[in-house]
Amino acid sequence: MDARERLAWAYLAAVSEPPSAAVIRLVDAVGVVDAAQAVATRCVPEGHQGVLRPTAARYEKDTARTDLETAERMNGRLVTPVDDEWPGWALHALTMSDTAPRGGPPLALWVRGGGRLDAITDRAVAVVGSRASTGYGQHITSKMVTGLIGSGRGVVSGGAYGIDGSAHRAALASDGLTAAVLACGFDIDYPTGHTQLFAGIVADGVVVSEYPPGTSAGRHRFLTRNRLVAALSKAVVVMEAGRRSGSLNTAAWAVKCGVPVGAVPGPVTSAMSVGCHRMIRDGQAQLVMDADDIEHLITPDGVDDAAGTTRRPDERTLDDVQSRVRDAIPGRGSATIAEIAFAAGIEVARTRSALAMLETYGLVASDGSGWRLPAR
Amino acid sequence: MDARERLAWAYLAAVSEPPSAAVIRLVDAVGVVDAAQAVATRCVPEGHQGVLRPTAARYEKDTARTDLETAERMNGRLVTPVDDEWPGWALHALTMSDTAPRGGPPLALWVRGGGRLDAITDRAVAVVGSRASTGYGQHITSKMVTGLIGSGRGVVSGGAYGIDGSAHRAALASDGLTAAVLACGFDIDYPTGHTQLFAGIVADGVVVSEYPPGTSAGRHRFLTRNRLVAALSKAVVVMEAGRRSGSLNTAAWAVKCGVPVGAVPGPVTSAMSVGCHRMIRDGQAQLVMDADDIEHLITPDGVDDAAGTTRRPDERTLDDVQSRVRDAIPGRGSATIAEIAFAAGIEVARTRSALAMLETYGLVASDGSGWRLPAR
Repeated sequence: MDARERLAWAYLAAVSEPPSAAVIRLVDAVGVVDAAQAVATRCVPEGHQGVLRPTAARYEKDTARTDLETAERMNGRLVTPVDDEWPGWALHALTMSDTAPRGGPPLALWVRGGGRLDAITDRAVAVVGSRASTGYGQHITSKMVTGLIGSGRGVVSGGAYGIDGSAHRAALASDGLTAAVLACGFDIDYPTGHTQLFAGIVADGVVVSEYPPGTSAGRHRFLTRNRLVAALSKAVVVMEAGRRSGSLNTAAWAVKCGVPVGAVPGPVTSAMSVGCHRMIRDGQAQLVMDADDIEHLITPDGVDDAAGTTRRPDERTLDDVQSRVRDAIPGRGSATIAEIAFAAGIEVARTRSALAMLETYGLVASDGSGWRLPAR
Repeated sequence: MDARERLAWAYLAAVSEPPSAAVIRLVDAVGVVDAAQAVATRCVPEGHQGVLRPTAARYEKDTARTDLETAERMNGRLVTPVDDEWPGWALHALTMSDTAPRGGPPLALWVRGGGRLDAITDRAVAVVGSRASTGYGQHITSKMVTGLIGSGRGVVSGGAYGIDGSAHRAALASDGLTAAVLACGFDIDYPTGHTQLFAGIVADGVVVSEYPPGTSAGRHRFLTRNRLVAALSKAVVVMEAGRRSGSLNTAAWAVKCGVPVGAVPGPVTSAMSVGCHRMIRDGQAQLVMDADDIEHLITPDGVDDAAGTTRRPDERTLDDVQSRVRDAIPGRGSATIAEIAFAAGIEVARTRSALAMLETYGLVASDGSGWRLPAR
């Protein structure tokens, strides 16, 4: 990627409050440089007027250069969908939640730390829970995380006090990889009491945020951030949660993304376990007692998808975009992505993403120059 | 019932180790007096040779008179299927488990106490769990039982130390009705440390056993007893259970009888909650936090069957005997029980039981002298 493109990504990552569905659609349609140009000049292609309002407040202020400089200073970078480090497979699930409030994939992610985001999230489990955790909750979190790290998993959490902190700390104590997904700029140690913890995380792990440097945490950003915690993980486990804990929101995102949800029981007399018990009772989460139970959640049949095998979904599990893309592939011969995108009426970037998923399912095949239906 | 019949029931209740499927079949076929006579003389009708082996060890010793005297002395009685107090509806579920090891209904029940067995079990919940209960388990048992009694339910348990004892005690403390189903004779205070507790239970509640007075508790009798605890209840709730707790066996009987099973979670660090957590995790029990959750288990749609409404089952929920009995009723006119039993090829007593169930479903109607299909 050349400097101009990098600056365009950074500009667009700052110019609207994530998630930025309209901006992403514009980038898919005209490329990142022209998209940035269009937003900055308020001169957008037909059909993309929707991008104007979400960018109206910030389009005049181009912080791209300083944001990238801040990132470099902090051993960070902006990871975009065209970078190898982009966890595209994991984030793909969010394209299906596009229409949900605060849904949709991130435009790009600010990442700092010595780890590779995609490598950590590839086999990661999200371990989340209440900030006001109990000694019980902290104890079981440490134990569970130690088990997860022992079986080669990374641990994703939100960097907060309470269960999040216990999860990150236990991962580090076991020499494991952990990713903290923040609801503020990745340059801000929030909460400040976790400055030391974040310093430990970025040694081999990463701190991640879709917000540009300097962004402060806000209530709506926690909810938006939660979808990334869910999407970047193979399972979400709620260790302790009160009646209205934010981790229930993370669990709800997991359900939307098709990520299995576990919850750990505790004393019914503990207010910090009420959220977990309700989710189990109401069928929103599976009861998990230990790391083995979590492995079973991820691979009920004992076969780990990440280990190379893939399951072939039946028709019903294809989303609308995937179905349309598959249907747009000619019955004989092959077609280019542009041809398929045109036939399906779907932007090129989303078509590419759908084709990648369909290929893993064995429903389409690439022949180098184009895509075709697989030989039977 | 005349004295001769009563003595015959008492003789047969002692003459083989329950459950006594062969003896019950013989009573159904020839009546209780002739059945007792046949067993005592070893001269049984054709097709009933199966009754000889289970009664071989005890047939010569007729304890009927002394057993009935013991019962009378203890404010007790022998409750048989022909007595009003017989909880026939509840026990009907056991006829479907006839072929399971230790399955099938009891021949009769020895009952002592001021309560009426059928009245207590009509709206009862079984509250069971580990003998080696923790302070946590005892606490939540008290709380849950207080809630159940508050909503007019009776509490059935096994009279043992630990959770059982907490359940009975909490019921008495709330002026509620409770039934202890024993694995020994109803005249034996087992465990002896519960002598005082049993004295409290029999004031308004009952102590129940299918074993004749003087029978000592034995391991196999606990397992056999467990089926009665399950069948006599509208729901079974396991408060605490270790990995191999006997209450898991009670829960398994509940599943066989179509009685819903709840389990209360606890700390995952507690060995006494492992059984509960496994049942929830593996889908054998629903997680319940409080008495409200138990009510929801019993009446998911908020309608209590016991309150007078009955649900009409579709064809699939009729068992084989019920289907055959229904099919044996003539298309026009009515038939006597004997005629229906003959046509269906099913013993009169079981035919009567099936007709009673079919009547509650509205699938047959009684016209005083016989049974017919309901008017449409």
